Amino acid sequence: MSEMDFDFYMPTKVISGVNCVSEKGDVLSSLGKRCLIVTGAHGAKESGALDDVLALCKRLRIEQAVYAGIGANPKVSSCCEGGQMAQAFGADFIVGIGGGSVMDATKAIAWLADNRPDEADRLFDGTLRHPPLPIVLIGTTAGTGSEVTSVSVLTLDKTGRKRSFSNPKCYARYVFADPKYTYSMSRDITVSTALDALCHATESFFVPNGGEIAALFDEKALPLLIEGLAYLTEHETADAATREALLYASLYAGIGLNATMMAFPHPFGYILTEDFGMPHGMASAVFLKALVRRGEVYAPEKAARLFALCGGKERFYGVLDAHVKHDVSMTEEQVAVYSERWQNLRHFTRTPGGYSAEEGVKLFKELFVQ
Amino acid sequence: MSEMDFDFYMPTKVISGVNCVSEKGDVLSSLGKRCLIVTGAHGAKESGALDDVLALCKRLRIEQAVYAGIGANPKVSSCCEGGQMAQAFGADFIVGIGGGSVMDATKAIAWLADNRPDEADRLFDGTLRHPPLPIVLIGTTAGTGSEVTSVSVLTLDKTGRKRSFSNPKCYARYVFADPKYTYSMSRDITVSTALDALCHATESFFVPNGGEIAALFDEKALPLLIEGLAYLTEHETADAATREALLYASLYAGIGLNATMMAFPHPFGYILTEDFGMPHGMASAVFLKALVRRGEVYAPEKAARLFALCGGKERFYGVLDAHVKHDVSMTEEQVAVYSERWQNLRHFTRTPGGYSAEEGVKLFKELFVQ
Repeated sequence: MSEMDFDFYMPTKVISGVNCVSEKGDVLSSLGKRCLIVTGAHGAKESGALDDVLALCKRLRIEQAVYAGIGANPKVSSCCEGGQMAQAFGADFIVGIGGGSVMDATKAIAWLADNRPDEADRLFDGTLRHPPLPIVLIGTTAGTGSEVTSVSVLTLDKTGRKRSFSNPKCYARYVFADPKYTYSMSRDITVSTALDALCHATESFFVPNGGEIAALFDEKALPLLIEGLAYLTEHETADAATREALLYASLYAGIGLNATMMAFPHPFGYILTEDFGMPHGMASAVFLKALVRRGEVYAPEKAARLFALCGGKERFYGVLDAHVKHDVSMTEEQVAVYSERWQNLRHFTRTPGGYSAEEGVKLFKELFVQ
Repeated sequence: MSEMDFDFYMPTKVISGVNCVSEKGDVLSSLGKRCLIVTGAHGAKESGALDDVLALCKRLRIEQAVYAGIGANPKVSSCCEGGQMAQAFGADFIVGIGGGSVMDATKAIAWLADNRPDEADRLFDGTLRHPPLPIVLIGTTAGTGSEVTSVSVLTLDKTGRKRSFSNPKCYARYVFADPKYTYSMSRDITVSTALDALCHATESFFVPNGGEIAALFDEKALPLLIEGLAYLTEHETADAATREALLYASLYAGIGLNATMMAFPHPFGYILTEDFGMPHGMASAVFLKALVRRGEVYAPEKAARLFALCGGKERFYGVLDAHVKHDVSMTEEQVAVYSERWQNLRHFTRTPGGYSAEEGVKLFKELFVQ
């Protein structure tokens, strides 16, 4: 028997269920008397989550201000602005309401709020002097898993490139997971975010020596995600049960990825998001089939287990093929430029059988060069 | 579909694997420069864990003192004594090395150490003024799950009765789970502690509306525990793979029970421990068959799932029958006295179909009255 691995850390308290903010939100009182609420332009309001939080703050006599300045692929400068606003407002804690972009930005804002907001570079090397303000996250999509990770992926203002940090100080204190907040997602966002979660669970599942705990959560997520995505091949919109299953599956997958971190589909996907405007989940999923094919070769027992959990190999690939589309076209020269980023990429060591820049070039040519 | 439940909180960082204290113990430096090490009389030394911790302290230049005053079914007065010693030594954090008794006592000692050690009564209502010192736990048995819970079960000096507290402040900061520390357990302790973990996983699994996360961990623990206990019906001692599986299974089961808390076997078992000297795990297991039989009636789908995970109904009950023995004899009058404790017992609401004091009396008569 090979050695098991029980390493585990997930200090966030997840509170779940319909109306959980209204019914179980009193814990926020323990975090202070003033909070900055971070949102994007629409989702927090449309989902109903913002109104629930505003009503809760009123009831608990928590003073609040809203910073609605976070867009998709949030910029570092937006986080600085949010941090400045939190500081000016004298926030005791930060509540992020939205999808992965808002939640990732909230982690940065909370950390900058009690430091010098103009020192955002120090987010990435973890050298900010003071710890973040307490963080509360409320998801309005079902994919990112950012609720249960210490990871934040931001976009650098100068280069437009994504850069991430991960620090145990950035775990949320509380997460509220209410399936009803995901009802307002469009079909496209529902599919793309579910694909994001599927990438998390699948990439994490195949990470060599990923550990027993990550596998436990990945294995719970995988069938729920394939079920949900299969439902969406036959229905225009997800029903309540599917919404709920996708939300909780995204949290399971988030706990899995948090324990292992990602393989190559994620960094490859960043390129399609940065330069071709593709939504994050779909962009990662473009590379998922290649990862699983590789798993079939280098980790055949895991691949067999994955397929068994997902109703068979044909069904797994069938669901992927039904949803994953791209019309990206590149030249060989473009691929060569991208491949310069792929030296010593940690994600490659997290791929079954390892991975190399050369293999990445080959895959990109197959997928994108006419 | 009935509503899912993703509520989850487990803020302890579990570090696992052979030699994890030596190889990954540097994190202790973050907790301070002086620690009190809490142990029982033998296990910490015989397991090798104490020597590993002493060597680690030396390397990290952490000053240490050892309080070896914890016995089985630890008394509140011992925890007061330990708290006083921690205070006198100026401990920054507390390291508990041992089985469930030591780990439960360590939580109390850590909490008393920065308060008035003579105010131990306030452990039970959570009104001590200051939070506990940081707690590190290193298990030398495979059963209690105390490593991953905020629960402490102590024995009151005056009455000899068990009383427990559970407080989120009492989660360990770090747990080191090294299977090699469990090698020195005798066969009796190996069996009794594995039965304790089996009770945790089974009781937790059957708690009505126990939630998805608890079930995830319980379902992981159950087959490992039945496998391990079946191995011990055919072998005098457990091999390395079985030791490892039992240790990690006890942690899975601990995370499960921490999310749901226990049904009736545990409080009933306390009686056999308090008044008949039976080891805790065995004492709880005496009542486990009655719980599962009840599950068959009131939660048949769960029971079927349990049996499927454990290689079938016959195997599950067969393993229980092979290990669970008692020679306890009581009078009807004794049972009547015990039953006075069973009014409004929360554990009864955590039993499939509920449970009543009258049903408890009937069960005790069947088992113990000639």
